Amino acid sequence: MPSKRTRVRRAPARGIYDRETIDAILDEGLVAHLGFVEGGQPYVIPTLYARVGDVVYVHGSAASRAVRELSGGIAACLTVTLVDGIVLARSAFNHSMNYRSVVVLGTCRRVGPRETEEALEAFTERLVPGRWDEVRAPNRKELKATHVLGMDLEECSAKVRGGPPVDDAADHDLPVWAGEIPLRTAAGTPVPDPKLAEGIQPSEAVEAWSSGPGRRPG
Amino acid sequence: MPSKRTRVRRAPARGIYDRETIDAILDEGLVAHLGFVEGGQPYVIPTLYARVGDVVYVHGSAASRAVRELSGGIAACLTVTLVDGIVLARSAFNHSMNYRSVVVLGTCRRVGPRETEEALEAFTERLVPGRWDEVRAPNRKELKATHVLGMDLEECSAKVRGGPPVDDAADHDLPVWAGEIPLRTAAGTPVPDPKLAEGIQPSEAVEAWSSGPGRRPG
Repeated sequence: MPSKRTRVRRAPARGIYDRETIDAILDEGLVAHLGFVEGGQPYVIPTLYARVGDVVYVHGSAASRAVRELSGGIAACLTVTLVDGIVLARSAFNHSMNYRSVVVLGTCRRVGPRETEEALEAFTERLVPGRWDEVRAPNRKELKATHVLGMDLEECSAKVRGGPPVDDAADHDLPVWAGEIPLRTAAGTPVPDPKLAEGIQPSEAVEAWSSGPGRRPG
Repeated sequence: MPSKRTRVRRAPARGIYDRETIDAILDEGLVAHLGFVEGGQPYVIPTLYARVGDVVYVHGSAASRAVRELSGGIAACLTVTLVDGIVLARSAFNHSMNYRSVVVLGTCRRVGPRETEEALEAFTERLVPGRWDEVRAPNRKELKATHVLGMDLEECSAKVRGGPPVDDAADHDLPVWAGEIPLRTAAGTPVPDPKLAEGIQPSEAVEAWSSGPGRRPG
């Protein structure tokens, strides 16, 4: 059930509150926009994230001001937006985007060592499924330098727009093409690190990602 | 010059303050994340936007709570993030994203009729360059239903990460592929509105966009 704060008020028909939809959007995105307030000023910063069960994790340097502020339990808002297409109407006014977005309200808490390791695995797997088993695991120094913050998926909602433009009936006869230009995130050919030792090829996991049909597989 | 609030503190070498870089990022993105505070709670909402000179415009329904709040001159933060690639290191810890982001701090003001029309043209042209001249212009009813808000580009900064992963020297000999998977926004084949009258083809402007090499041309 939506809370009073997460109920979608503009275009309420686009508001969705079931966890299945919310989770699918969260699990497809790569970057979240995290909002918090400091001295009355809102800040919105892009950040990697990963969902594990009922928690969305973000992480940052132990030295980061945002991480310190957020660990203190201040109010936060985490938003993930997937852009699916440009909606071209016959009238300027009815132009729009097709998108799927999720808004999570709550507070962040700094998680303990075991949850930190789980979250770091989830971050790595979000980037390339299968990557965690290929790479060197975090050592103690790295774990100490990273703070992982968790936000519970308690107060959250999704908003989705899909389909064709909605023009006024009077505009339907205008000689203007109308429809959608679909957009997707496409991966290019992997670029090796200039310091890569000779003879090391991208793993199957990396190849699967980069030759995928667009939206990340996985 | 960055203000105390926009100076990039984490990874300061990634902070960029020249307007040329900031404008280029703003002019490439399609969706901004706009943050504001209501009752102590930050909200972050995705929104279309357009830059014209020294102002970033957003718009919304005259009936929208967010638009009403923001018109009142409360503090706001507008963030645009372009995701350029996934950075795969030999260690889990050094995985990252390549990205370019801009943060604009300030307040929104509701703009007058002339600036509103200019902004609506800019929104339409942001979606597809050349589109404004193809479509029906906004009528008085539509102009009344839309509020355009402007944020001055006074307090703003960019943050950019590019290039290969940065691994610890001790990890360079690990037999793990490292590098970048480039990402871009790709447009698919235009999907006509089911209500489109027969024989109307996508304009050159629409075709140019959707057959472009990835990132929107223009």
